[in-house]
Amino acid sequence: MAESADATGSLADDDPSYREAVVDLLAAIAYGEISAFERLAEDAKLAPSLADKVDLATMASGELTKVHALHDRLRALGADPFEAMAPFRDALDEFHRHTAPSDWYESLVKAYVGDGLANDFYREIAAYLDPETRDLVITSMEEGTHAVFVVDRVRAGIADDPRLGGRLALWGRRLMGEALTQAQRVAADRDALTALLAGGVDRPGLDLAALGRMFTRLTERHLARMGELGLDA
Amino acid sequence: MAESADATGSLADDDPSYREAVVDLLAAIAYGEISAFERLAEDAKLAPSLADKVDLATMASGELTKVHALHDRLRALGADPFEAMAPFRDALDEFHRHTAPSDWYESLVKAYVGDGLANDFYREIAAYLDPETRDLVITSMEEGTHAVFVVDRVRAGIADDPRLGGRLALWGRRLMGEALTQAQRVAADRDALTALLAGGVDRPGLDLAALGRMFTRLTERHLARMGELGLDA
Repeated sequence: MAESADATGSLADDDPSYREAVVDLLAAIAYGEISAFERLAEDAKLAPSLADKVDLATMASGELTKVHALHDRLRALGADPFEAMAPFRDALDEFHRHTAPSDWYESLVKAYVGDGLANDFYREIAAYLDPETRDLVITSMEEGTHAVFVVDRVRAGIADDPRLGGRLALWGRRLMGEALTQAQRVAADRDALTALLAGGVDRPGLDLAALGRMFTRLTERHLARMGELGLDA
Repeated sequence: MAESADATGSLADDDPSYREAVVDLLAAIAYGEISAFERLAEDAKLAPSLADKVDLATMASGELTKVHALHDRLRALGADPFEAMAPFRDALDEFHRHTAPSDWYESLVKAYVGDGLANDFYREIAAYLDPETRDLVITSMEEGTHAVFVVDRVRAGIADDPRLGGRLALWGRRLMGEALTQAQRVAADRDALTALLAGGVDRPGLDLAALGRMFTRLTERHLARMGELGLDA
């Protein structure tokens, strides 16, 4: 994997379609973080205590502070960050509109599961990037200490009210379903980004079997996260 | 000033009323930043463009990231940060409830004027603190690059529609009035904090004339900020 990625080191300069794919990817991640900030800041209002609110607001701020490095890189690639993000706004806004949490626990599960899923997906893609872009993507994904806070809160909530577990398990499935729906929509629209996964003349890519394995890995990690929260997925 | 502050270096340990005042001060600043995060994140929804939204969201995140150092210091002083912040919630929440911006420009002016006023006030107080606490307070106040962004946007708005200047000038006066109202409320409730300004046996403080000069300085800086925005105060 490291070998194939190193071979693409200067592709952003030499290969217009690779550059286009990288611009798409960084822009999608950046807008994803902006919209995550908005949702988390909004969901923080549902917090049952000021301490919980501060924890969720800290997650929100963490998302936003990573946007600026992505924008800088987009500018270095000659792209306008806001133009580059425009094609991804509908899909991400739709995702959030269809998954507005109805209570504090749903917002916690969404923050944990949604963030985890996005991070897993971008980490999978990172393997097909030149080292510099890959480092930037991995840095953008770094998780803070918030995971522990979410797991503690959700497990405590289920211990208090076992019916909550059933509702949140359904919620987790719905989050996964909506994420896949919107990801397919983006894939259908953005040829360069899709081609990044499929590979090119100079770049190794995924055949259908490998793509299938990738989705299996993403699903398994999703199930593992649900398990950490104490939920049947 | 440096001399008097150095003389109070270990007062947080030796003098219970000084410690109480420092706990109050740090807690008030911390809750001020949490509530500023909430308001700025909310006001970001009013942004006319995604770029403007990101700028305001960045200001919001900047406020929140400073909360954690204040909480750490409160814990080091043996206080629970959330208990310590509780007495300041009503006054700050009231301030924000009475100054909910009705449009994007009001939110910009509020962010600029409100942040500036709070920072000036805490800087004045910082002179009466031990060096360690003073450094923490000054760091919490450090402004980012957002000031330029706000000034540009407000000046451009007034250039487009000169009537906006009159409305925002009134808005600035209202912000100052509400801030003073809530500050007086806090001063009436929190003896230790008020006593910090008045001084103590081992600490120099402000007499009434000096307090008057301090308010004159705060007002002058408020007027200067309004002027920078192109507003008659």
